[in-house]
Formats: sequence, structure tokens, C-alpha cells
Amino acid sequence: MPTKKINRQDMKEAAERYKNWGKWGPHDEIGTLNYTTPDDIIAAARLVRKGKVISLALNFDKTGPQGAKSKYPAMGRINPVHTMLRTGTDAYSGVLDHRGIRAADDMVVMPLQCGTQWDGLGHVFYENYMWNGYDCREVTSAGAQKCGIEKTKSRMVGRGVFLDVARALGRDFLEDGYAITCADLDRTADAEGVQVRRGDFVIVRTGQMEAKLAAGSWDGYPGGDAPGFSFETLEWVQKTQLAALASDTWGCEVRPNESEPGINQPWHWITIPIMGMTMGEIFYLKELAEDCAADGVYEFMFVAPALPITGAVGSPINPLAIK
Amino acid sequence: MPTKKINRQDMKEAAERYKNWGKWGPHDEIGTLNYTTPDDIIAAARLVRKGKVISLALNFDKTGPQGAKSKYPAMGRINPVHTMLRTGTDAYSGVLDHRGIRAADDMVVMPLQCGTQWDGLGHVFYENYMWNGYDCREVTSAGAQKCGIEKTKSRMVGRGVFLDVARALGRDFLEDGYAITCADLDRTADAEGVQVRRGDFVIVRTGQMEAKLAAGSWDGYPGGDAPGFSFETLEWVQKTQLAALASDTWGCEVRPNESEPGINQPWHWITIPIMGMTMGEIFYLKELAEDCAADGVYEFMFVAPALPITGAVGSPINPLAIK
Amino acid sequence: MPTKKINRQDMKEAAERYKNWGKWGPHDEIGTLNYTTPDDIIAAARLVRKGKVISLALNFDKTGPQGAKSKYPAMGRINPVHTMLRTGTDAYSGVLDHRGIRAADDMVVMPLQCGTQWDGLGHVFYENYMWNGYDCREVTSAGAQKCGIEKTKSRMVGRGVFLDVARALGRDFLEDGYAITCADLDRTADAEGVQVRRGDFVIVRTGQMEAKLAAGSWDGYPGGDAPGFSFETLEWVQKTQLAALASDTWGCEVRPNESEPGINQPWHWITIPIMGMTMGEIFYLKELAEDCAADGVYEFMFVAPALPITGAVGSPINPLAIK
Amino acid sequence: MPTKKINRQDMKEAAERYKNWGKWGPHDEIGTLNYTTPDDIIAAARLVRKGKVISLALNFDKTGPQGAKSKYPAMGRINPVHTMLRTGTDAYSGVLDHRGIRAADDMVVMPLQCGTQWDGLGHVFYENYMWNGYDCREVTSAGAQKCGIEKTKSRMVGRGVFLDVARALGRDFLEDGYAITCADLDRTADAEGVQVRRGDFVIVRTGQMEAKLAAGSWDGYPGGDAPGFSFETLEWVQKTQLAALASDTWGCEVRPNESEPGINQPWHWITIPIMGMTMGEIFYLKELAEDCAADGVYEFMFVAPALPITGAVGSPINPLAIK
Repeated sequence: MPTKKINRQDMKEAAERYKNWGKWGPHDEIGTLNYTTPDDIIAAARLVRKGKVISLALNFDKTGPQGAKSKYPAMGRINPVHTMLRTGTDAYSGVLDHRGIRAADDMVVMPLQCGTQWDGLGHVFYENYMWNGYDCREVTSAGAQKCGIEKTKSRMVGRGVFLDVARALGRDFLEDGYAITCADLDRTADAEGVQVRRGDFVIVRTGQMEAKLAAGSWDGYPGGDAPGFSFETLEWVQKTQLAALASDTWGCEVRPNESEPGINQPWHWITIPIMGMTMGEIFYLKELAEDCAADGVYEFMFVAPALPITGAVGSPINPLAIK
Repeated sequence: MPTKKINRQDMKEAAERYKNWGKWGPHDEIGTLNYTTPDDIIAAARLVRKGKVISLALNFDKTGPQGAKSKYPAMGRINPVHTMLRTGTDAYSGVLDHRGIRAADDMVVMPLQCGTQWDGLGHVFYENYMWNGYDCREVTSAGAQKCGIEKTKSRMVGRGVFLDVARALGRDFLEDGYAITCADLDRTADAEGVQVRRGDFVIVRTGQMEAKLAAGSWDGYPGGDAPGFSFETLEWVQKTQLAALASDTWGCEVRPNESEPGINQPWHWITIPIMGMTMGEIFYLKELAEDCAADGVYEFMFVAPALPITGAVGSPINPLAIK
Repeated sequence: MPTKKINRQDMKEAAERYKNWGKWGPHDEIGTLNYTTPDDIIAAARLVRKGKVISLALNFDKTGPQGAKSKYPAMGRINPVHTMLRTGTDAYSGVLDHRGIRAADDMVVMPLQCGTQWDGLGHVFYENYMWNGYDCREVTSAGAQKCGIEKTKSRMVGRGVFLDVARALGRDFLEDGYAITCADLDRTADAEGVQVRRGDFVIVRTGQMEAKLAAGSWDGYPGGDAPGFSFETLEWVQKTQLAALASDTWGCEVRPNESEPGINQPWHWITIPIMGMTMGEIFYLKELAEDCAADGVYEFMFVAPALPITGAVGSPINPLAIK
Repeated sequence: MPTKKINRQDMKEAAERYKNWGKWGPHDEIGTLNYTTPDDIIAAARLVRKGKVISLALNFDKTGPQGAKSKYPAMGRINPVHTMLRTGTDAYSGVLDHRGIRAADDMVVMPLQCGTQWDGLGHVFYENYMWNGYDCREVTSAGAQKCGIEKTKSRMVGRGVFLDVARALGRDFLEDGYAITCADLDRTADAEGVQVRRGDFVIVRTGQMEAKLAAGSWDGYPGGDAPGFSFETLEWVQKTQLAALASDTWGCEVRPNESEPGINQPWHWITIPIMGMTMGEIFYLKELAEDCAADGVYEFMFVAPALPITGAVGSPINPLAIK
């Protein structure tokens, strides 16, 4: 962890240093997802060798992480509320028969960032700007007129690389406040015998979620302290030209943050609006970790389509690692 | 269309004839998705030759089909309601700065069957039974204790086969009430030079959705008359051993139904609870149709993960054809 | 209808003329509701002579006015969605018995302005200001920090005066576009033998809702053309010192508006943020109209408590006329 | 507390003893609300002597009691989720100006029993029956076809009587598990110098809510142990012929219940479906308690209109005591 706290001037310099605005033209709305080419997708498909599909999603239900205790202010997110519009008990009771069909239907109410999710490019602003220099006023109560998650609808396919940092560092899980460095990421890739390449979807395991699941309580998880990316990893993100990055924590970056008071989630300030990087959070990585440890293969085809909710700044997802 | 209407005795006979209960053991909850093997997934991945990803989803928003006029009773489904929890206009106004981060968040309220979707195996009952003989009372107001959509979370990957029936029959779209026959399906496959095989995800185009989109009105679409599968195609479904079947209409099967009054959606009565077949509806097929017509390739890798909402009887999805 | 359209300068002059800011101190958040005194409430209670309670609410359900056609852009409001969390069919099916109680529960999703409602003082802004000069940025995605509807929780009680303008003008209902004048209001009061006094809750009937109900279609109602208050009635509102004003239309004021393009709902611009007047809309007045016509008594005790949803800018209500 | 636990046979006997089915005809759907007559309403209005309105509602927001810890299984209720559809920050940002009006709108998602509320007569069943002998299958996923809360829309007006049992027993609040007896109620009325009469709305204070509010935590409140009505008070309810009964706890009756395992909320089994008594819960009584203690007047006009949500089994309310 840096001895000096990140301040506004550091933020400004990082914004200048890592700015990708205009890189894919003035009208681009998907940022680093552009790094993945058709050839990358073809190559990713060739990684399917066992025919095994591993879901990286937590189930969406009332046992999810929202509402657990945190020492930081709550964000107003709730766990999904799933309600039925028609049921099998209605069927059994005979009350559906006038319809000529016994069928159940259902509904959900959910914050789009309540569980396993993509943070879209409309999610975070840098000053008055969003990705590619769009005005932050493009995200109104009517949704995101620019960079809505629906713009990614044909995009979340490519090579997945799994970096099990906790395992590479010889731990069950990284401690809260542990800041993952560039060196940690490189060391993990080396230990696994994989290379991160342009256009990859990189998935990083801290083990924190599994620790919470094992403890039987999400307290401290939503918005609380966590292991995660150090601010310095912006350099690594830029260098690798990855398409998207995901982790098993609530917010990817280390908490407490490395920044001065008043700067919350400094890494987000840069990754999303400045670099244009879509970010995956609350990924469930236990099964993938076990499978990769068993077969020694840390690359796979990755498919994680967002629900194209028009104007959304994020999306719940069921990301799949296909090996 | 049959001259004789399908009656209760016909339903009973079809239920006996096509019943797959127990085929994958007494505890199975995913039915015909079992047909897809790891080898099928490996082979499906080999179909990725262009590196092109085509989304088969309509965007989820208030312009969706729900609420349009229909001559049948409404089902109580609404279009998705997307609301913001924090916005870029909040950011611009300075009211988020006390948080130390300028970020937007959002929420959705949506029936799970309101747009492009999977019908899960808890969606339709045959008398008091659901798939595999489970009691329909397993689907209560608390959701589906059996056959919830979350049981499919690692399953919606395989070979996709696109049967453009409208095109094969030389039409822009099939007329409402047109009952697609087994012969139509075979003729389409022949014309396209594809074979439907065990474990495939078969996607059938009627063109109806595109006709509605071109007309600028969904009137008649949700629950209205439509082209779709004839009751006789149950035989074709059984014979092909497909994993799942999808179409571009509201309810896959032909409407008006071929059945006597009091039997609504007879094909559903059999496909879901008796055969255990997951069904895709409201698929957007225009882009896929154009691509397949252009390259003459009607098979591809298909990935369409359900959102694992615990106990859900369906799921909104963003199905991907990867060619 | 005025020959000259209301323009920005007219708005500015009206804002200066009718501004009540500061009238009840710099911290006031309820505006003209302050006009009603304890003595007024005591006197209002004395108007209860028959012991008859008349609800002025439409039921809240999917048959409500939202979603009907309008020639103006939609506002994104839907009818209430009422879903069950537990049911009598669950009870019948025996699936609740493990709880030791057979009970139903339910939930609602509803825009607060979707049916019979109060428009709170956070609902409309004049330039960058809300009632009493508060900054409009007090109403963020987190709700109204000033003038939330919960501030009225002990306030919606007083003398109700019913002005049946349609009846006084000898019509079943006023035509769309009919602008109710100060003279119309005075003439109606005279015809009814009532006087409007400081602190009253004044309810004005146009008959439009009943015409829609009789026609069996809400088309044209939500946001469409309507009879309603002329801009000149601001003078009448100011003079009478009424506590709140309500009507049976979607938006109280006449539509098409009397203003130039670009000024939508000019009367609202003044009544809510400038005068601090709470406004009732979509009131169901048929039964009240019949009762008042029958007994000739147009004053009563009026009780219409808002649901104190913290930070809300409106509230669905069940207003009661108690005679 | 009885030494003997209430068993099924006791329930059966109570059901026979207190059954009001048919008392107001075979088609009645509002039960004991029928006890209040027009004359009672006139008399109630005469109780308005100070012109003071006291709200008995908690504000509806995320600080409400739902989600707090309880040793009993959760009911699936959440606190209200209030979201904005348009905001003052949108206005400030200029993004609403194309509409010609700067206005905010909002929405709520809420279980109808999440805060201050009426339990309607569709809320609890006795075996397969609801109030007046209606089949419990009248309450389906489509709502309550019988006894929906909308049937009470012109009914919740009458004489309110406040029984401050905690105060009468000399305590700040009654302890969890304290079973209020008929004698306690009579003693309280005597101490206050009021008489409970046919058609009254009786509001009973335990002080539990205030204790929770003072402690700054709702833990133990929703569904947890509580002071409340003893099973024997069914006799008192029957004898007094009250219209409705309300309290400041989550569920009115004493918890732990006085019944054998498997019988949860035995008093509810009788009051709602057998007696037809509407019940108020989670009433905020601090201000009323202070006012009544100060002026010694424990009777008032009570007005607490339900939101007429069609088919609802309960309703959030803002009950008013008007003194």
C-alpha cells in the first residue's frame, strides 16, 4: 500500500495518462470491448476442449449480499425481489382453468448492480464526463442516452483468462485491504502459465466471496473493506489491452481505498470513464478455481451477455466459462 | 390446419406418447437440456468460423410488445420499467460529491416473460403435474421449488440450428394462423443444407416479429394470433431430440390454436411439462436471418444463459449466435 | 381561450405576482396547506351531518388511465402492478402450513402519480427553484430533501367545497380545451350557495373522467387534451387562499395549454413552486356530484391523508368527503 | 399467560364461538366495519374540539422495520423502495426543458404490509375459508376476488379510542411476551375515563415501537417477540363490537404465541377470517400518547382510509387521529 495517499492531482495525472477517449472514434460507446476482434473470438472458441460450462453467477435471490452490514454508507441496493404472477398452487386450486392453460408466470424487481453484474460505461463519471468525453448529463432519470449497456449486446464473447491471485499467493483468500499489484498479477499469470493478451476478459480471484459464503454472512461485503486492485494496476490494465476485467468482490478495487478522504473508488474514476473499461463484479469463482486448479488450464472461452436493458448503466449477468 | 379440433382425449394420448418423465432419473429438473453432451459443446465451438456474434434479443424497454392490443385476455405482463437510483444529472448537479464518487445506478421491474426469454420447466403444468412428474404445488408464491430456471445455469450452450421457415417457404413472413408442420421443418432444413441433431438448440423464424416491427405496432403480437408450431410437431421435437426450441413469436405455437375451446396452447401442455423442453420466445431473428442467407451457414455456436433467479419459471435473456 | 398565447414574459410576471415564498417563513415546506387552521378543522368537522363517507378515489389497478393513448409524449407512468407474495391458493394447496398460519400477503409497484393523487410541492420547479425558493437540486434521485410529501402527513384535513362546474354550466361534462375561468368558478359557487374560504380544499368537477369511464376507454385522458383551469384562475386561487385544489382530470389545467410552444402546463409552473399549492388530480367525483346534487350541500369535511413516503413528490390517496 | 397451550381443539371451539359469518348477510366483505353507523360518524366528528391532527403513520422509507433481525423465519417483506422517474437534478441539468416543464415524478415498490397498515379480510384464512365463509381460493395470484381492501374504501371513519395500556400499567413499554388481557383493556379504559362502544376504532399502545425507535434498531420487531393481545381478548373484541383494532406492534397479538407448535398467530386465525375484523399494525403512537396524556382525552375522530388497490389483502395507510 502506498505511504502517500492518492490526491486530486494524482487523479488528474492518471486521467491524462490513461485516457482512451477518441481511440475508437468520437461515437464509440463500448470502449475496451473494441479490443476483442473476430479472430480473437475464433481463437477463444478453440479453447473449448472439455465441453464443460461453468457459471460464474451467484443465484439472484434474497440470500444475496445486499442489505448486509457495512461500515460505509449504504447504496440503496436491495436483493432481487422475485414474485409470482401465477402459480402451480393456483393451478392446483383450479383457478386458472378458465384460461384453458395451467401456467405460472413471474416478475422480478432488482437493482441492476445487486449481484453478479457488469458495470456499464454509464456507471461512473469523471467530473462532468463519461466515457469518450460524453457529457454526464447523458445519463438522466430516463437512463443513459450514451453508453447504455444495450450497446454491448453482441460483445461479451472472447478469451477468458482466470488469474487466481489468492491461490498464487498461497492463501485461501486475500485479506481485506490487500492491494493487488501489477507484480501480483504477473506472478499469478506466470505461475499459471498463461499470458494476458489484447482483447481478453480477465477474471481475478481474491477468494473474499468464498470466505463470506463459508462464514454464512455477507456482513462487510457490500461496500465494505475488501482485497482488490491497487491504483497502480491501471498501468497493467492499459498495457494488457484487456477487454474487460472482473472479480469476486463487490467493487474490484481495494478497500479502504488508497486515496485521500473525498476520493472514493479512485480506480473506478479512471477505469470506467477514462479508459472505457467494462467491469465485472460479484463473480462467483469457486467452481472455476477448482476446475482450473485441477486441470491446470486457466484460459477458456468466455461468454457473458448483458441483458440489453435500454439505457442501463449495468446488467445482472450469468457469465459462462466454457472449457 | 386439422379439420378435427384437438380434444382432451387427444391431449391425454399425446401426453402418454411423448412423456419423458424419468428419462434422466427421478430427480431431473432440466429435461431435454440433458441431450446436449460435452462433446456436442466442443463440436459447437468448432462452428465459430467468422468470429461474429449476433444477439437474438430485443432490447428490454418500454417499446416492447407488452400492453399491445390482443383479442385474447391479457396476461398481466408489462414492459420492463427501468428506473435510475443515481444519475449523471445528479453528478452534474453536485449532489453526489459527498460520496466521493460520481456514479449512476439503476433498477428494473420486469415480468420474466416480457421480452426475449426462456420459458423454464416450471412455467406450464399438465393437470397437477410439472416436468418429471413433480407436483404442481412445487410452484408456490415463493417460486418454483423444483425446475427453477437457476437449475439451467450451466446449460444453455450448444449447437444452434436456424430454420428460416418463412424464407424456405418463399415468404417475408408466415401469416397468422399458419401451422408449421413437420414437413415444413424438414423442408427448411433440407433447403438450408443442415441437419438437426440430438442436443441442438433449434431456432425457428416465422418473420412475424419483423412484420410487427416494420408496421410500427405490436398490436396483435402479445397473445394474439400468430404463425407457429402445429401440434403435430411434437413428433418432430421428440424425434430430433433437440435440447431447446425457440421462435420469434410470443408463444411458439400456432394461434388460433388447433384445439377445442377450453384447451389453450395445447402444444405447451406437452412440450414443457411432459417432454421437459425449455422454450425460447420473442427471439429477434432479423439479423441472424440476413447473416445466414448471406453466408449460407445455418449452424453456429449458441449461448443463451438464463439469469439464475432462484425459483423463477422463466428468464429474460440475451441469446447469442456465434458464427 | 385567450387570443394571445402566454409567453415567457407573462410567466415571469405571474411568478412575481403570485409568489408566496417566505409567507410562512424561510423553512416552510407545505405552502398553502398552512392556510387551514385548527379552528377551520373544528368547523369542518361540524359539517358532518349525515354520517356519509364518499371516497373520491379511483381504485388502483390495471384498468387505470395510464398507458392509454395520448397525442402528447408519454410520461413513463404505468398503472399499478399488484402482485401477491402469498395466496389463498397457496393455503388451499397446503404449502403454507409449515408456517403455522394460512395468510396472504401482497406488494405493489406504482408510480405515485398514476391514479388519484396529490402532487406534492417537490413535483414542479420554476427555473431552478422549488417552493419557497429552495434549490431544485434538493430533489435528487434519492428523493426530495425539501418539500417531500411526508411533510404534509398531519395536514390534509379541512373543509371541502365541491364546485361542480360542469353541472353549473348545464353540461354533462366540459369539452376538451374548455378553459374554466374565475367567473365560472364564482358562478358555480353562487349556484350552489357556497362560499370558498381561506383554508378550504376545493374540488372542481369537469365531468371529463366520467365521460371517459362511460366511453369505456381512457384514450386521450393521460396527458391529453382536457377541460381545466385557465391561467387566469391563478388570481382566483390567490384570492381565495384555498389550501389545496383538486379536479377529476389528469392535470387540472386546460389542455391544449394557453401558452406558446415550449411552455407546457403554465399554470403548474406557478401554482406549485411559486404559490406552494398542493394539487389533487384524477379525483373520482361521480358519487360526490350525485350526492351534492341530491341534498344541495356542497361543503363537507374533507380528509385525504398522503402516504408519508419519505422524499416523495406525490402520493396516491383515497380522499374522503364526509358529509 | 395460560399454563396450557392453545391447541387445535381450542382453535376449533374459538372459531365456533366467535364466528360472525352471515351476520351482515351472505355477500358481506367488510365484517366488523359494518358496526360503525352514520350516527357514529356524526358523533365521532363532534369529538373534534382542538382542531389537531395527529398522524399515526411511520414514514415509509428504507429506515422502516423490514429486514431487521428476528428469531422467526422472514416473511419476504422489504422496506419501501422509492425511486425517481424525473428529478430536480434533471431540471437543473436542462435535460427536461424539451418537455416544456421542469417536473419530478416518482415510483414506489412496497409490500402492502411493510409499514403502518391495515390487514384486510383477505389476509388470513381459517382452514380453507376466509371471512364470511368465502373459499380461500378467492385469493389467487390475481389478488383477492372477495374481501379486497378496496371494499373498505368509504369505511375507515369513526370514533377512535386510544387505550394506552403501557401507561395504564405504569410502564414505558410492555415487555416482549406480555399478553394483554381483557382486564388490562378494561382497566386502561377505566383509568382513561373512556368507554369502548360498538363501531369504535380501538388503538392500543404497548410502547414496543417506541422502545425500538429509542434503541435505534428494529431488530426483533418484524415477526419477533412482542407484547400484544392475549387469545382471551377475542372475548373482549366480540363483546365490544368494535369496528377495527390497531396496535403499535408488528402483529398485534402476543409473541411468543400462547399456542402449541404449529399454530402461529392463533388470535389472527380468529379475528380476521372468523370475526371479520380489520386490523391495524405498526401504528406510530408516540405523539398520540403524549397528546392524550396531556389533555386527558382518549377519544377522537379517526380517519384512516385504505388505498383502494383492487384485490389487495392489506394497505399502507396514514391513519389520522383528529382531536
